[in-house]
Amino acid sequence: MVGGVKQLVVLGSTGSIGTQTLDVVRRFPDRFLVLGLAAGRRREELARQVQEFHPRWIYLEGEDKMPEAGRGQARFMPMEQMVCQRDVDLVVVATTGRAGLVPTLAALGAGKRVALANKEVLVMAGEMVRSRARRSGGQVIPVDSEHSALWQCLQGEALGDVARLILTASGGPFRSLSPEALAQVTPEQALDHPTWKMGPKVTVDSATLLNKAMEVIEAHWLFDMPWDRVQVVVHPQSIVHSLVEFEDGSVKAQMGAPDMRIPIQYALTFPERWPNNALPRLRLEEVGKLTFEALDEARYPCFSLALDAARRGSTYPAVMCAADELAVELFLERRLGYLDIPKLIRSALEAHIPNSSNNPTIDDVLAADAWAREWVRSKV
Amino acid sequence: MVGGVKQLVVLGSTGSIGTQTLDVVRRFPDRFLVLGLAAGRRREELARQVQEFHPRWIYLEGEDKMPEAGRGQARFMPMEQMVCQRDVDLVVVATTGRAGLVPTLAALGAGKRVALANKEVLVMAGEMVRSRARRSGGQVIPVDSEHSALWQCLQGEALGDVARLILTASGGPFRSLSPEALAQVTPEQALDHPTWKMGPKVTVDSATLLNKAMEVIEAHWLFDMPWDRVQVVVHPQSIVHSLVEFEDGSVKAQMGAPDMRIPIQYALTFPERWPNNALPRLRLEEVGKLTFEALDEARYPCFSLALDAARRGSTYPAVMCAADELAVELFLERRLGYLDIPKLIRSALEAHIPNSSNNPTIDDVLAADAWAREWVRSKV
Repeated sequence: MVGGVKQLVVLGSTGSIGTQTLDVVRRFPDRFLVLGLAAGRRREELARQVQEFHPRWIYLEGEDKMPEAGRGQARFMPMEQMVCQRDVDLVVVATTGRAGLVPTLAALGAGKRVALANKEVLVMAGEMVRSRARRSGGQVIPVDSEHSALWQCLQGEALGDVARLILTASGGPFRSLSPEALAQVTPEQALDHPTWKMGPKVTVDSATLLNKAMEVIEAHWLFDMPWDRVQVVVHPQSIVHSLVEFEDGSVKAQMGAPDMRIPIQYALTFPERWPNNALPRLRLEEVGKLTFEALDEARYPCFSLALDAARRGSTYPAVMCAADELAVELFLERRLGYLDIPKLIRSALEAHIPNSSNNPTIDDVLAADAWAREWVRSKV
Repeated sequence: MVGGVKQLVVLGSTGSIGTQTLDVVRRFPDRFLVLGLAAGRRREELARQVQEFHPRWIYLEGEDKMPEAGRGQARFMPMEQMVCQRDVDLVVVATTGRAGLVPTLAALGAGKRVALANKEVLVMAGEMVRSRARRSGGQVIPVDSEHSALWQCLQGEALGDVARLILTASGGPFRSLSPEALAQVTPEQALDHPTWKMGPKVTVDSATLLNKAMEVIEAHWLFDMPWDRVQVVVHPQSIVHSLVEFEDGSVKAQMGAPDMRIPIQYALTFPERWPNNALPRLRLEEVGKLTFEALDEARYPCFSLALDAARRGSTYPAVMCAADELAVELFLERRLGYLDIPKLIRSALEAHIPNSSNNPTIDDVLAADAWAREWVRSKV
């Protein structure tokens, strides 16, 4: 940091988490400086951000330079190069899918602190992320509300004292639909998440609970926790973001209004907390009631599928992520039914058996991802 | 500590918190050693504890020696002397009323760590306790479930980042009684606490919420928190033991089954947590529902009375505590109605105005306590 100013790179700056990150940054003009911005699409939004934040470096996916008009004084630079620049204090990885994988590994390799919102990074390459961070002194700070909750509850505590990490799940919009009704679910219904406003892919993954399985996998890698110590409880109000049970029977929970800017800001300011009146305050007496129920895994085939893939390890998680990404895309385009999503993922995982590799490298992971995309496209 | 063994003195060892403290100690025979035991009554129970724990020192209120039979090898020693002995690592103050005041100040003056369960100590002499601890390097660890919850939530956090400490209150058994029904409340009804099993005095104080006001006062002193930053929310299930709201909108809560051995053990093992399978584990999916509502102060005149006394400072809190102790005693003996408890406390506080002293010493506090007892006795 220079003069107490935290210098940031934001990857995926035009997406849901990226724009909310910049919302937080905007509240502290004297304490944050945006050095780099990278976006996957939405060229106009990126151009607008460049005008506002004057980054040194920008990147737009699929281009090898930024059109003159939107570039300002910024230099065009690939993400994995941008994140390693000397002045960078914190890299916010708010990309989706496999996009964040290589830049995250690069940033950690350069000993940077990474605020990680891109779920697939830890799911596809958890072991690699962990060993890269360990070797180079880099650090991963979670952005996701659930992992931020666990991270906050674990401050001042020892991981060895943890009995269970308990992730809360809203249960999605179809928590009580019959199997017949589930088969008829439309993209509009799946996109109507009861509590959180998120991008379309994550919202569908929240309905199938594949998202929650990915969070279990992330927690496993982030906190070095055995599979059976990471559990899920259904909590439809999304007020308790997650909980930690300790070996002495004590449980700590982190709560808040369901607004992603709260965990985003914590990841940006960690280990400090900065006052922000723009963030909503929780009033439990107004919320009135918090409910909890056991997770009925039978209702959510994607949940067990994803966890099985993660437990199997190798390149299966990469195949699972890629197959899900395409299946959700096809569902949103109405080319696939809601219940076909898990079927397609299961078939892809089975078809991958002869191609899986032990101790995969990053190239093996990316090849498995490409293979799975190809395979799904050939089937539909 | 000698060889990793924590050496304890337990004051009030035969009361509710004292016996539960020894329950916890019993689970870790290699890690705790009981050096001293002191009791207010229940001579037989103390004799039994002496047989089991073989303390070096014992004390029984109102005696200047222990009857031969129950003494074992133990030496009779006043509490304020016992707590200062060189080998003592931790003093558990589980006495009630004013009994813990002088020994707590003595222990802190000797630089000891005190696990404090005796509410009146901080209520009657918060400023003195704080300055004594600061001067001598002593430390107060809370035992009460609410303050233990706050203490746990504040681990790894900075007090300056706190927006509010939020104490939960069950609301007591009379949360929804009409004023007419309240006037008719019997000791049996008041002793039937919905969630916690406690001694009779604390249980009645829980019904009137005077207990909760004392907890607000304790939190004010323990965490050096302005009065308007310590608030109460009604939570009838007593699962969330208290919460901390931070300036960035994040809220941390500590939860657990309502079993005092959990916060007691944490106070004994702090900053460590020791695995204990004898303690009940919280299963939120079995609890199902947690509810919260605003506190209706008008229903609980003792609550505002006690807080007013604390804000006024001087010797008023001592008068409030003593008047309440006697009023509750008279109520349990059916010599006073339930609604007469606040009336009697209010009258005592008013009558005390000419006798109150600024910057009171410990003797002034004890004199105010004695005066209030005398005054209440003369009135009933």
